[in-house]
Amino acid sequence: MTLWGKRDDMVVHEREPFNAEPPRRALAGSPITTLDSFYSRNHGPVPQVDAATWRLEVDGLVRRPLSLSLDDLRDRFEHHEVTATLQCAGNRRAGLMEVRDIPGEDPWGPCATSTARWTGVRLADVLAEAALLPDAAHIAFAAPDVSQIADPPQPYGGSIPAGKALSGEVLLAWAMNGRPLPRIHGAPLRAVVPGWIGARSVKWLQRVTAQREPSENYFQAVAYRLLPPEADPDKAGPSDGISLGPVALNCEILRPDGTGPLPPGPTEITGYAFAGDDRTVARLDVSLDDGSTWAQADLDEPRDTWAWQLWRITLDLPPGETTITARAWDCTAAVQPGCPGDLWNPKGYANNSWARLRLTCRP
Amino acid sequence: MTLWGKRDDMVVHEREPFNAEPPRRALAGSPITTLDSFYSRNHGPVPQVDAATWRLEVDGLVRRPLSLSLDDLRDRFEHHEVTATLQCAGNRRAGLMEVRDIPGEDPWGPCATSTARWTGVRLADVLAEAALLPDAAHIAFAAPDVSQIADPPQPYGGSIPAGKALSGEVLLAWAMNGRPLPRIHGAPLRAVVPGWIGARSVKWLQRVTAQREPSENYFQAVAYRLLPPEADPDKAGPSDGISLGPVALNCEILRPDGTGPLPPGPTEITGYAFAGDDRTVARLDVSLDDGSTWAQADLDEPRDTWAWQLWRITLDLPPGETTITARAWDCTAAVQPGCPGDLWNPKGYANNSWARLRLTCRP
Repeated sequence: MTLWGKRDDMVVHEREPFNAEPPRRALAGSPITTLDSFYSRNHGPVPQVDAATWRLEVDGLVRRPLSLSLDDLRDRFEHHEVTATLQCAGNRRAGLMEVRDIPGEDPWGPCATSTARWTGVRLADVLAEAALLPDAAHIAFAAPDVSQIADPPQPYGGSIPAGKALSGEVLLAWAMNGRPLPRIHGAPLRAVVPGWIGARSVKWLQRVTAQREPSENYFQAVAYRLLPPEADPDKAGPSDGISLGPVALNCEILRPDGTGPLPPGPTEITGYAFAGDDRTVARLDVSLDDGSTWAQADLDEPRDTWAWQLWRITLDLPPGETTITARAWDCTAAVQPGCPGDLWNPKGYANNSWARLRLTCRP
Repeated sequence: MTLWGKRDDMVVHEREPFNAEPPRRALAGSPITTLDSFYSRNHGPVPQVDAATWRLEVDGLVRRPLSLSLDDLRDRFEHHEVTATLQCAGNRRAGLMEVRDIPGEDPWGPCATSTARWTGVRLADVLAEAALLPDAAHIAFAAPDVSQIADPPQPYGGSIPAGKALSGEVLLAWAMNGRPLPRIHGAPLRAVVPGWIGARSVKWLQRVTAQREPSENYFQAVAYRLLPPEADPDKAGPSDGISLGPVALNCEILRPDGTGPLPPGPTEITGYAFAGDDRTVARLDVSLDDGSTWAQADLDEPRDTWAWQLWRITLDLPPGETTITARAWDCTAAVQPGCPGDLWNPKGYANNSWARLRLTCRP
């Protein structure tokens, strides 16, 4: 156990802001990610919030602004639990960096994604108590962690459309896997926006504001936007590119993990597939010949709309070098695109090209 | 004007059942498709329904079964209008057939998709009047048109999950573009299920049944399922493959149409992009070098969630042979897959690979 209670084999991209993902083996075969393995994506120093004096302010386009302690939230609203996968918009950026470098961004591998059982209250219930006004089209989240990455430096924030905010799955959560929310994951309270990029699940939440327009926070208006390849991200302004919200269909291979040679022969290959948004994964294909032929993996049923689905298949690995390729199909029969080169973008977001893992088998 | 009031340059794949799509030029530049251009996909002879004696039966898991005349529907329920694109699951099958033949299926081009303003009542309102029971998970549609394609031959039918059926956009429609629904498009009443494959928008609707399971009709249980490439469609049974429902992201080039040589030089290229499901299109790219470089087209704002978005761009076409390639990105920053070969399936459904149009420019 090292930084922030995380396992000592975390892949630490930065110590401050703390940005780390677990190794593939930590996620393999586990529908729920343990707290010491859950990836951590931050934009500034981790704030220390005094839960006793902390209040959640609910304001903006509401008839009854609220100021709620943690006890108020626990006592005055129904408790809900949602099993949800969070996925960083930069998950699998390393695959895009193999195409062309992306200076200034962390080379996230396949594990900037994790799944927990989140407990808290529905944002919809809190907004109902505050009596949301009809012209509230967006719900903004504000936090105290000041980011020097932002231009100008500013506390972290973001927003989601009111339609999503009022859906039953969006929580204000104080617990994770049945335990108090760890400080690194947003204690005392964080937003959990299932199916959307992790950046919208704002940690150390202190203010919820109903407003007409999306948040003007740097991380909503400027960052987390998919720019076309030719754009200069330093010159991109608000409203350029595609604002990232719902997550696109994705998958990865978790075992084997490519870290050492394996014996050839029948080998169980496992991984995750995540449909994102409100979709589910319908099929998962694995290829040992770069996509010329495919075998269908055994895929978990979509028990929770908001969680990834694990998959496994046993294939006969030949001696020598092999690339394992995996691709997911969603419930609309859409399949992931093949080539990371087609997806390259200046900030390296949303790489959902086929998963590829190179490994060597030696008798 | 020839068959069924359609324009005389329709591409008729079959006369009975009548299966025809308009040429690209008929759709180009028109947000709403005219009635004489709207594609027509049928599975049996077009029935002649006497509107005066016709009744819509609403039964199954409801507390109050209903038998409704057209006047009942018009008088007892609020009228709604939805602009929605319908798209055949076999749209663009011809592109898959270039990869490998698909015997027994029509070679639909890019125009088995059209958009209309539909007027009628909400299915949700009719189900509320019938007092839907809580264990009703699916809403089945039944029609009188007997299909010899089905095994065994049977009247056409299908179903949608109750969640979709209760959404505000699903209509029971008697008008199309402000005119009475033509017989070929389902008079006196049809289902309109926006964002879903056209097959679920059942025409000549005569029965709506609330039930625990999806319809066992051949066109729900056996056909309209995306099978893996190696499957034998004649041996595929219920629950094999992915049951097609929501439409996946797609696009096509409508002008130029590749039917004759053009002069080289600046040329306006236009087309449609359709996100399907409840998504919208966020970006449309066009390439003249097979996807090495892309230019962003001017894309219509998503005014109607359920309708396609038209796009246009002026590019300098060189003399000689050129392939125009187009691809759409949706609001999750997902892009269409590149290669039809990756999507080939035994029944030829859901081809949403990049659009490609070959043409010749001569000075």
